[in-house]
Amino acid sequence: MIPNVSTSASSSFAPLIPSISIPTHAPSLSVGKANSLSFPSSPKTSRLSQHFSSLRSPLPMRPPAAVSIEKETMEAERPDTFLRESESGEVRVRFEKMIRDAQDSVCQALEAVDKVGKFKEDVWSRPGGGGGISRVLQNGAVFEKAGVNVSVVYGVMPPEAYRAARSASPDQKPGPIPFFAAGISSVLHPKNPFAPTVHFNYRYFETDAPKDAPGAPRQWWFGGGTDLTPAYIFEDDVKHFHSVQKKACDKFDLTFYPRFKQWCDDYFYIKHRGERRGLGGIFFDDLNDYDQEMLLAFATECANSVIPAYVPIVERRKDMPFNDQQKAWQQLRRGRYVEFNLVYDRGTTFGLKTGGRIESILVSLPLSARWEYDHKPEEGSEEWKLLDACINPKEWL
Amino acid sequence: MIPNVSTSASSSFAPLIPSISIPTHAPSLSVGKANSLSFPSSPKTSRLSQHFSSLRSPLPMRPPAAVSIEKETMEAERPDTFLRESESGEVRVRFEKMIRDAQDSVCQALEAVDKVGKFKEDVWSRPGGGGGISRVLQNGAVFEKAGVNVSVVYGVMPPEAYRAARSASPDQKPGPIPFFAAGISSVLHPKNPFAPTVHFNYRYFETDAPKDAPGAPRQWWFGGGTDLTPAYIFEDDVKHFHSVQKKACDKFDLTFYPRFKQWCDDYFYIKHRGERRGLGGIFFDDLNDYDQEMLLAFATECANSVIPAYVPIVERRKDMPFNDQQKAWQQLRRGRYVEFNLVYDRGTTFGLKTGGRIESILVSLPLSARWEYDHKPEEGSEEWKLLDACINPKEWL
Repeated sequence: MIPNVSTSASSSFAPLIPSISIPTHAPSLSVGKANSLSFPSSPKTSRLSQHFSSLRSPLPMRPPAAVSIEKETMEAERPDTFLRESESGEVRVRFEKMIRDAQDSVCQALEAVDKVGKFKEDVWSRPGGGGGISRVLQNGAVFEKAGVNVSVVYGVMPPEAYRAARSASPDQKPGPIPFFAAGISSVLHPKNPFAPTVHFNYRYFETDAPKDAPGAPRQWWFGGGTDLTPAYIFEDDVKHFHSVQKKACDKFDLTFYPRFKQWCDDYFYIKHRGERRGLGGIFFDDLNDYDQEMLLAFATECANSVIPAYVPIVERRKDMPFNDQQKAWQQLRRGRYVEFNLVYDRGTTFGLKTGGRIESILVSLPLSARWEYDHKPEEGSEEWKLLDACINPKEWL
Repeated sequence: MIPNVSTSASSSFAPLIPSISIPTHAPSLSVGKANSLSFPSSPKTSRLSQHFSSLRSPLPMRPPAAVSIEKETMEAERPDTFLRESESGEVRVRFEKMIRDAQDSVCQALEAVDKVGKFKEDVWSRPGGGGGISRVLQNGAVFEKAGVNVSVVYGVMPPEAYRAARSASPDQKPGPIPFFAAGISSVLHPKNPFAPTVHFNYRYFETDAPKDAPGAPRQWWFGGGTDLTPAYIFEDDVKHFHSVQKKACDKFDLTFYPRFKQWCDDYFYIKHRGERRGLGGIFFDDLNDYDQEMLLAFATECANSVIPAYVPIVERRKDMPFNDQQKAWQQLRRGRYVEFNLVYDRGTTFGLKTGGRIESILVSLPLSARWEYDHKPEEGSEEWKLLDACINPKEWL
């Protein structure tokens, strides 16, 4: 089976990235009038101090988003669960536990590597249901910026979103669709240019088919992936990283690694550059044609593989001496990271357009990035080798 | 007349930014199969050294863009004109002369301010017709990155693009539409955080209506604007800048400044942040309901106003002492600049998707930018005042 990148590829970062294109943090959705020509007037009297808590207020002279969502509330403490009793279900409960455990263990491992930086935690909820925990370590000794987010949201998606995602025929008019989405997502940007950036994201999605659609099944699927973005290639590092991904895959299905490795190379493609943002890993989406229990175990295995895949690499590279040119090259590659995330990543772009929690979505961006006009690394240089591998993906194992 | 932002707003940077959504550097267009499910296979054997001259080669495992354009050729010398005899016409000839003169005088003035940095020139052409001149000054004494581009392109646009732009009814099936588009565009990013970034862009567009459409008129229009993006507010600077824009406008029509000032505030809006990227200026598009000669003179006046509007400000601010925190705030605001250009700017996003000359399009990005998680300036601080003015646009005059 060749994955259909054009319809199924999904977010690389925003916590909830159902391929059905539901806003990443949205428990309940209301459909605005897309392309309306009447705009609310400018809220010129609003104060900046009110602004941060009212970003979703009427927008001056701009067309409203096709789909808008209610504003999140910041919470003083994290709850034991974001699930309400009525919204619980065995897989949901176990998936939430899995991603929250993974968040704890990843953050703990990263603080142990960094020794100086500590994660700052923000807990948020939405009145309609669900919420999330954002944890960010900024300007540590090893990490420039590290974000590890979980979110668990549910509610009702507008029929339009369901139709768009499922390619239902236009004469089918389903009612609002209940959905559930939970995920962990993380981007870790180290300071040292020889220590690679890593990203991972694992998510679970459920939806009920239209109530009145005859025989329509209840649906669920898993998605996710882990990928590596170095500025310089150390073959041992890349081989180690891919081998851990392969080992996790092989425990479940021998076709997983080759398929998901290819899918990853395809998804993280910066089309206008003709290059990938990094050296890949694994990526999958819409996965439901296997036993649900098996896929839950697979997602768990993948999430638990992040630390053994990444920490040995960052430990080896974090203290290597480097010069200004090498730092500048890292910054240029971070510019590519920004380009991918803002232009192509479906979770990020959809999140921005529909009003997810901006700070959670954009924590994926590096602390700093750089754009030089017409920069071309010298043929045969280390920078050239990295770029070559981004343009022509390699089989690392 | 209230400008309709949702349908007429156009590019802030890419040299050719007809609101009809033609690729910014494209002399001839061919329509790909959007959302096709068959992808060309990966060009794994291609070499990096060939890559830079073949970015438009078959793309691995990605859906082709809806519209693709032919690759540009780099030229050793700039021609006297990019117009072919068959493509000339009085307004075209005069507009090309105007933008090339403006490019010369702006670059000369900026080198005089910078004293150290010199513009590097790249000349390109497209086999189908037209070309451009990109000039970039990078890492000077005053300017971190300054790009001043002109382009003059013509050819045939696919009916789909025309239909999308003109909202023709789906049963109308026009043939290919000949078009002409020329423009100058520029973004200047100084180093000193007290010296503002400025952007300007002026463009002229012509198209023939469908050959077989009964009574369809030949069409032309002008677009453009000049806007200021400081990291700190000096009221005198902002007032001076806006007063020069107003003076240029008032020479032609007293309604121009208030309308185009509002249009500018509306266009440069970063929706997911609820703030504008800067403090505005003027912006207009689709302007053809005035005498053509008058609009040509207006665009010329605006282009000639860039230096008197901007140079006195940068001269006053370029040597002011600043600290690391002020530099970091400038970098954060540059992050917003990147967000606007990559997510919202129609010329940039369309250019990226359809294969314009990437280095020309992305020269608008700053040399460096920064993203901090959940950064909020202290109430009442200078940073807070700037942000407040980006959220609640002011009348500066």
